[in-house]
Amino acid sequence: MVYTRFLLGGVPSWGQVEGDSVREIAGTPFAGGRQTGRSLPLTGARLLAPAVPSRVLALAWNYADHLKGREEPKDPQVFLKLPSCLIAPGEPIVLPPGAGRVDEEAELVAVIGRPCQNVSPREAAECIFGYTCGNDVSARVWQKNDLTWWRAKASDTFAPLGPFLVTGLAPADLTVIGRVNGREVQRCSPRDMFFDVPTLVSWISRSIALDAGDLVYTGTSGSPAELADGDVVEVEIGGIGVLRNPVRAGS
Amino acid sequence: MVYTRFLLGGVPSWGQVEGDSVREIAGTPFAGGRQTGRSLPLTGARLLAPAVPSRVLALAWNYADHLKGREEPKDPQVFLKLPSCLIAPGEPIVLPPGAGRVDEEAELVAVIGRPCQNVSPREAAECIFGYTCGNDVSARVWQKNDLTWWRAKASDTFAPLGPFLVTGLAPADLTVIGRVNGREVQRCSPRDMFFDVPTLVSWISRSIALDAGDLVYTGTSGSPAELADGDVVEVEIGGIGVLRNPVRAGS
Repeated sequence: MVYTRFLLGGVPSWGQVEGDSVREIAGTPFAGGRQTGRSLPLTGARLLAPAVPSRVLALAWNYADHLKGREEPKDPQVFLKLPSCLIAPGEPIVLPPGAGRVDEEAELVAVIGRPCQNVSPREAAECIFGYTCGNDVSARVWQKNDLTWWRAKASDTFAPLGPFLVTGLAPADLTVIGRVNGREVQRCSPRDMFFDVPTLVSWISRSIALDAGDLVYTGTSGSPAELADGDVVEVEIGGIGVLRNPVRAGS
Repeated sequence: MVYTRFLLGGVPSWGQVEGDSVREIAGTPFAGGRQTGRSLPLTGARLLAPAVPSRVLALAWNYADHLKGREEPKDPQVFLKLPSCLIAPGEPIVLPPGAGRVDEEAELVAVIGRPCQNVSPREAAECIFGYTCGNDVSARVWQKNDLTWWRAKASDTFAPLGPFLVTGLAPADLTVIGRVNGREVQRCSPRDMFFDVPTLVSWISRSIALDAGDLVYTGTSGSPAELADGDVVEVEIGGIGVLRNPVRAGS
């Protein structure tokens, strides 16, 4: 099933994508998602980030080719982003003044579908509702020089998400592609993660109880590219779609 | 003015504390807080954490006697906690199994009262609605060995808050005291912060837009004490009150 969040008469709604139509559902996809009978053309719909999380967790060092000589991690290495840094497809990533180098990071994002506390990887697999595309925007100078990654990873606009929340996908079969101005800069398969998604969710759930709508950005691969004012950055995952965001210099 | 959040007929409500009474107000204190006419005795009221934040920011290295030989920071050193790790006065702090040493950290907490984005320290001062007591519970082994502080600082139950949200206080006139089982383990004055509260809020607001209810844990002083199963930990600030929480071993 392909879900999207969108504005309908100025009000955020959830819908199912069927062909070129969005069919509104009542409540959230996690609660069943009965269709209301209202629909609109997908073309021209104002899409929103397809999740309203209370928590956004993210992974560092989850692909070998992103380690850059560091040792393979013994446990998943997690950090926090903020729900308030989520932006929708098409919304601009704003480069903070004085931040120096800011990179894109193309990632598969897991969306939690039910309460999930201290679960095993097998139980965690049943708590994962679906997947979407995410961009874990990162300010490299702050990431290196600040004591923690708070503003390096959680500045406003640093978490593009979308366009669709898709169920029934097997991460190992997917390909995650990052592009800047149409040029491919990242390509990986989640098959190559050190820790697969159920293991990540299980690990996080041992410290932090998760709930429906929460997100896990599962880590990036290779060498992310620097972003500049006027760029357009894309994260594409076959079976989900293309998350495209323009880049603007902040003031 | 002294505000509290409490359960009234099972529903979270805000109220003003007057003597031994809590007088319910409509909406939040940030929106004006007209009294509804309903009241109850403060004694026996089930108090909640006096804030419902979207963001919880916290400070490292903001007092000289907590630096332990590290250099004085040039800029405020911020990290993220999670709104979901807030607990109320009286709720237990749960020591995560396998975490090793977990410490209390007695702190003054600033509560934001209005939208606050990229503001000067002078403007930030007007965005601070009031203050409460906070305990920035910290798992030291995870803090030292993990790549980031996510579970060291944001594990479930790691942010006791309360008992009251108080307006009209001058931080420089306050004293923050930490106690474990009645024994004083920390004592400081916010006068001794490297960066005062308006400077902290201004600094954060340059990267992350804040809103009413958001929290800034302003840093701890001296040598925080280790917590063990069965302990009772208190944070007392004159003019605000005593935040008291029992400690339990998790399973």
